[in-house]
Amino acid sequence: MSKQIATNITWHDSDVTAEERQGLTGQKGATLWMTGLSGSGKSTVAVALEQTLLKMGVNSYRLDGDNIRHGLNKNLGFSAEDRAENIRRIGEVAKLFADSTCIAVTSFISPYAADRDHVRELHEEAGVPFFEVYVSCPLSVAEERDPKGLYKKARAGEIKGFTGIDDPYEEPTRAELELPTDKLSVAESVQKLLELLVDRGLIDAS
Amino acid sequence: MSKQIATNITWHDSDVTAEERQGLTGQKGATLWMTGLSGSGKSTVAVALEQTLLKMGVNSYRLDGDNIRHGLNKNLGFSAEDRAENIRRIGEVAKLFADSTCIAVTSFISPYAADRDHVRELHEEAGVPFFEVYVSCPLSVAEERDPKGLYKKARAGEIKGFTGIDDPYEEPTRAELELPTDKLSVAESVQKLLELLVDRGLIDAS
Repeated sequence: MSKQIATNITWHDSDVTAEERQGLTGQKGATLWMTGLSGSGKSTVAVALEQTLLKMGVNSYRLDGDNIRHGLNKNLGFSAEDRAENIRRIGEVAKLFADSTCIAVTSFISPYAADRDHVRELHEEAGVPFFEVYVSCPLSVAEERDPKGLYKKARAGEIKGFTGIDDPYEEPTRAELELPTDKLSVAESVQKLLELLVDRGLIDAS
Repeated sequence: MSKQIATNITWHDSDVTAEERQGLTGQKGATLWMTGLSGSGKSTVAVALEQTLLKMGVNSYRLDGDNIRHGLNKNLGFSAEDRAENIRRIGEVAKLFADSTCIAVTSFISPYAADRDHVRELHEEAGVPFFEVYVSCPLSVAEERDPKGLYKKARAGEIKGFTGIDDPYEEPTRAELELPTDKLSVAESVQKLLELLVDRGLIDAS
């Protein structure tokens, strides 16, 4: 009832600044925005990166279809307007995680350049680091992998507006990093992402 | 170029489980949902709690009007539908933060019991701890504090649908904690929140 916990801690009335927070958590946040075709390997790389960072003691959190589509964005469909809103909301949430000093890793096809650019702007306006990561592979390779059987369904006309088949994928023109997953192993991709984070002063190489 | 970083770390293909994540970050997440009238002291207490937790080495992040209203929820107005969607989205984002092992602290009037109950259900379904915290004070006290001059405007009819004046505040009936801020200091309120977190095994008393 009268346990005295942390009574020696004082606070100020105003918000915690970004610098204060970084000092207290001992890390800096950023958004790594993985974009690419279905089957390009976004999720595989994102899963491996998240685990690697967590094991290095760096807080990281992944936003993907599993925790977004059935939650925050469950009231969105596949109209052009809803697709843009889908990416906007994910961008806003990633920005909040990055602001909290977490390394947010998003894993969504996000095929339209305008939507990705909008998310980049949201981060720039807030002074939060944002890195567009193009997880690339030829369509033929992605279609051969077809981990969820979606290309087969799209070719059969069972899915309409599928990226790469009857809807465009607009390749990034200013991605901070490209990961050609038809040439790189998962380990090599993770390595390149870690190098990016070290180079930008977001994590420590040691 | 060929810096070798963390090459000794291995990963598995599947998602990080909640238990694994808790083991790696060394903490457990939860949502503390602060609800109460405008001027009840929600934000003051939330700001103090966030700082206290961060200084204790516990990752915490606050969701409030400043980082939500102009970001994720900037496309929402004040219709009944939009108000419900506002709270739903905040609930979904808090759940994600709590899932990441962060102590998410939300600070919104959230006047309707149905909306708060819905957020509670979202957390229960996901197995994520949720605590409703009723930051209470008599309307007369909140109105006298009137930190943003909003009650004055509402009384003058310049703001319509203002909670407590011409829109109801539905008091929580099953809040895990009530903080009567007309009787408790900020320090005492923070203390009670820390006790709740210790009692529920979410943070360490030491």
